[in-house]
Amino acid sequence: MKIKVSDYLIKRLAGLGITDIFGLPGDYNFNILDSVVNNPNTNWINCTNELNAAYAADGYARIKGYGAVITTFGVGELSAINGIAGAYSENVPVIKIAGVPKTACIKSNVPVHHNFSEPDYYAFERIYQNVTSTTAYLTEDNAKSEIDRVIETFVKFKKPVYIALPVDICNHLIDDKIPEIYIKSNPDNLKAAAQKIVSLINAAKNPLIITDYLMKRFRLQKELNSFVDKYNLRITSMIMGKGLIDEDNRNFIGVNHGALGNEEFRIIYEGSDLVLCFGTLFSDLNTLGFVVKPDERFRVDIQSNYTIIDGERYENVLIDELMSTLLNSSSLKPKAQYLPVFHGYRNVEVSNNHLKVDEIFPLIQDFLDENDTIIVETGIISFPGSNIRLKKSSNYISQTMWGSIGWATPASFGAAMADRSKRPILFTGEGSHQLTVQELANMFKFGIKPVIFVLNNSGYTIERVLSNNPDDVFNNITSWDYKKALEFFNLNEGKYFYHSVKTSKELKSALDLTREEQKEGLVYIEMFTDKMDIPEILVRAKNCIK
Amino acid sequence: MKIKVSDYLIKRLAGLGITDIFGLPGDYNFNILDSVVNNPNTNWINCTNELNAAYAADGYARIKGYGAVITTFGVGELSAINGIAGAYSENVPVIKIAGVPKTACIKSNVPVHHNFSEPDYYAFERIYQNVTSTTAYLTEDNAKSEIDRVIETFVKFKKPVYIALPVDICNHLIDDKIPEIYIKSNPDNLKAAAQKIVSLINAAKNPLIITDYLMKRFRLQKELNSFVDKYNLRITSMIMGKGLIDEDNRNFIGVNHGALGNEEFRIIYEGSDLVLCFGTLFSDLNTLGFVVKPDERFRVDIQSNYTIIDGERYENVLIDELMSTLLNSSSLKPKAQYLPVFHGYRNVEVSNNHLKVDEIFPLIQDFLDENDTIIVETGIISFPGSNIRLKKSSNYISQTMWGSIGWATPASFGAAMADRSKRPILFTGEGSHQLTVQELANMFKFGIKPVIFVLNNSGYTIERVLSNNPDDVFNNITSWDYKKALEFFNLNEGKYFYHSVKTSKELKSALDLTREEQKEGLVYIEMFTDKMDIPEILVRAKNCIK
Repeated sequence: MKIKVSDYLIKRLAGLGITDIFGLPGDYNFNILDSVVNNPNTNWINCTNELNAAYAADGYARIKGYGAVITTFGVGELSAINGIAGAYSENVPVIKIAGVPKTACIKSNVPVHHNFSEPDYYAFERIYQNVTSTTAYLTEDNAKSEIDRVIETFVKFKKPVYIALPVDICNHLIDDKIPEIYIKSNPDNLKAAAQKIVSLINAAKNPLIITDYLMKRFRLQKELNSFVDKYNLRITSMIMGKGLIDEDNRNFIGVNHGALGNEEFRIIYEGSDLVLCFGTLFSDLNTLGFVVKPDERFRVDIQSNYTIIDGERYENVLIDELMSTLLNSSSLKPKAQYLPVFHGYRNVEVSNNHLKVDEIFPLIQDFLDENDTIIVETGIISFPGSNIRLKKSSNYISQTMWGSIGWATPASFGAAMADRSKRPILFTGEGSHQLTVQELANMFKFGIKPVIFVLNNSGYTIERVLSNNPDDVFNNITSWDYKKALEFFNLNEGKYFYHSVKTSKELKSALDLTREEQKEGLVYIEMFTDKMDIPEILVRAKNCIK
Repeated sequence: MKIKVSDYLIKRLAGLGITDIFGLPGDYNFNILDSVVNNPNTNWINCTNELNAAYAADGYARIKGYGAVITTFGVGELSAINGIAGAYSENVPVIKIAGVPKTACIKSNVPVHHNFSEPDYYAFERIYQNVTSTTAYLTEDNAKSEIDRVIETFVKFKKPVYIALPVDICNHLIDDKIPEIYIKSNPDNLKAAAQKIVSLINAAKNPLIITDYLMKRFRLQKELNSFVDKYNLRITSMIMGKGLIDEDNRNFIGVNHGALGNEEFRIIYEGSDLVLCFGTLFSDLNTLGFVVKPDERFRVDIQSNYTIIDGERYENVLIDELMSTLLNSSSLKPKAQYLPVFHGYRNVEVSNNHLKVDEIFPLIQDFLDENDTIIVETGIISFPGSNIRLKKSSNYISQTMWGSIGWATPASFGAAMADRSKRPILFTGEGSHQLTVQELANMFKFGIKPVIFVLNNSGYTIERVLSNNPDDVFNNITSWDYKKALEFFNLNEGKYFYHSVKTSKELKSALDLTREEQKEGLVYIEMFTDKMDIPEILVRAKNCIK
């Protein structure tokens, strides 16, 4: 059967479970958007700008596995690129599709809008080559094979890919047959790596797994939880891996803050004689400024398509196949069952004193429930946030490597769209929130009922921490009346609740009300702290991060 | 004398007349921002996000000659890139400076925040090479020579340039001597081109000059007005060149809408026997969809650094030197004085009927004054906007080639900062406004008193015009209560006035009040039209643009 190129492309996305596609219209992408609208399995989600659309698609992909964003040529794709670069940095599979001018324009190199005055129809693909694992520029001749190639790369590496699709090529007819995607490890290497890991674990007294972001991207939560349960293996998580392991799992010892962790954590961490890294990244903020760093006990490093054991590299060993081989190993011997370890926050007393940032997460920890999707912005909150104890079946997402402020607000919209059964909880600072605030409008439009915590500390407090002079004028920002945002972006009168919180007692009361209010609509909690109120963990880590 | 690298860089910018520098702070650019703050001639302007900062710097450069934007590494620079690409497309000199991690990080290729998990410290410079005329990555050894080289290119081509400046290199000491910038035409080619043009004009009966954007970039307004006055040469302007020529100048025949122009225009346009293009771009929207196109009468094409006369290319002839040579020509003979020609809008009758888009600009034409800076967003308003008759000493800026919606709101902030003596007037559609609306906060902060006209036509009307089906869902947007924006972004209580306008009579009344209100604060006029109300000029042009 024959099918239009743009219909085929959207059909392939739907086949990956992408049911919501984010972006903005433009006169070069109408044909593609028609394909989205006409496909019974996909919805078009208009965002307020392209960067927000890319962030939303990133948030969506982190929950649902894959995400997609469609923009117009030049202007739209460049506005979106920071969002795609973030997905590239953090291995989040987002496909970026640009509608580009018709082939006749490209061939004659005519100056049309969204191009340069000296036209360059390939400039934007070249730019995207730096932030994606592959790109394609579709023509009549290559459309089918290039779509298939790009989707295969997308599935294999779970990283962003890019397709430029000219207006006229959308309507070109191609074969509708979907090829099988055959991605397999080298069987010998897979077997050898698994055997080696099994024997290392069997020989170790106190092995410890450090899990991280790649296990999320390859959707190995279930296998990981089963694995540690079956063999009684203790496990910690890097900040970017938080949420992978059920935090009630008795083998979980808390998020890895290394030497800055609590005593219970440190005793186990330092007492382990074998450390196995499952999809782990030792970047500056993921390690609290390289506080966590590999030593000679770190003998296993499992990456997406290779594994290093004792310095030896096993090529073409896929992380998901390795996980299932380990899970089903007949020679791996379970350890004795460990006692659970305390992690997370202890209760705090509420008071009428001015709210301190260190009082916030302990109180919010009590407020968390099963089935929460928690999105945490980069900033001072991301450090104490990572220590909160999650309830079962919760997602926790943050952008710890790329750290683009503004990401969290649209990402929380996308994450909420990806799983409507969960309660979306956004933590952001008011500085970051300002960059992308308009995506609140879409939360109202789509009836998303998030709880939005905005920490208002009169500017970029994280920057005040890191700069030489906390009073540098460039860390001051304009003051906004956030309650009014809820009126501004919401002419359609979606229901909302607003709380202004200045003490821990007020935060506690607001949280008590929020539990019910959130069932009705959006809840916005603005929390005021001093501009130099810094969480304890950051005070201790800051010299490492600086 | 020795000077710190970042101090030297900022000193060079101040030397170009850049007194306001836009951007956002980040931990990799603090040293550069310190240099901005500490230089007595430069002010740091925090924007709400990096794209807005780049747009603001673009608006600033269009008025002041040069602009600058500083962001952090990776995240900030990629968020800004669409703004820089627009400046590149339209030949607007904006320098983009990124603060990047310290040299030790670069050398050890360590994964720090705002980089990829597999680090690539040069990815962003490579990306920027596609949207700038040159880039530099500063080191201890090259800092002085590279800054000097980049600034020379900046001055010569008036296009964006890019500098990556590592944290530690900022403090490195270099020689503070500022080299002379020596940019000259090839004297023989200059002389030959000027003589040829003079003889062509002398031989022509009805020569016509078409002026355009490059004349703005090389700041040749004064020379151009003197030139047509001195020799009685008739002149029209492309859309992007609007504002170059004093519109009361008796030689000005209106903006060039080609065959879609009014009768007075067409008679002169078609009756000219020689057409001279001064810095002109024949792009799709600048020509109303190639309605205006060169024919055999178009014998002179002056570009920034070369001129083509009767097919012969004169290399290395600089537009500014050619203009002054022509202006001072002793052999060019003045033509007989022409009678002035009607252009602009005729008065309309106001009524209580639902407002039509074609009623708007005639009424606003009456409202315009001397010393206005008018910024017009891409969209349906940009077409009728280009026909409005300006008063003396007014600026008119639009982004007709690049056409990135959202540009105008932050660009109007930047343009207003560039010349506080002028009244800023922004025209935008509500669809475009949504992308970048938060920059209103800075207008309040800096006491800018613009008149903001927002055309609310329930979605992307320009896209409805261009798409196959005007009811395509993807051209609907969320509905906002714009009056509330003025409360949301303005906790500091800058003064503002809001008018909701649904008829031409209401628009007239609002304009009458605005004249006084604008002296006090920001005036926001929301004008409601039907979602398919399209200006007549666009009805006629749309099949060409599609």
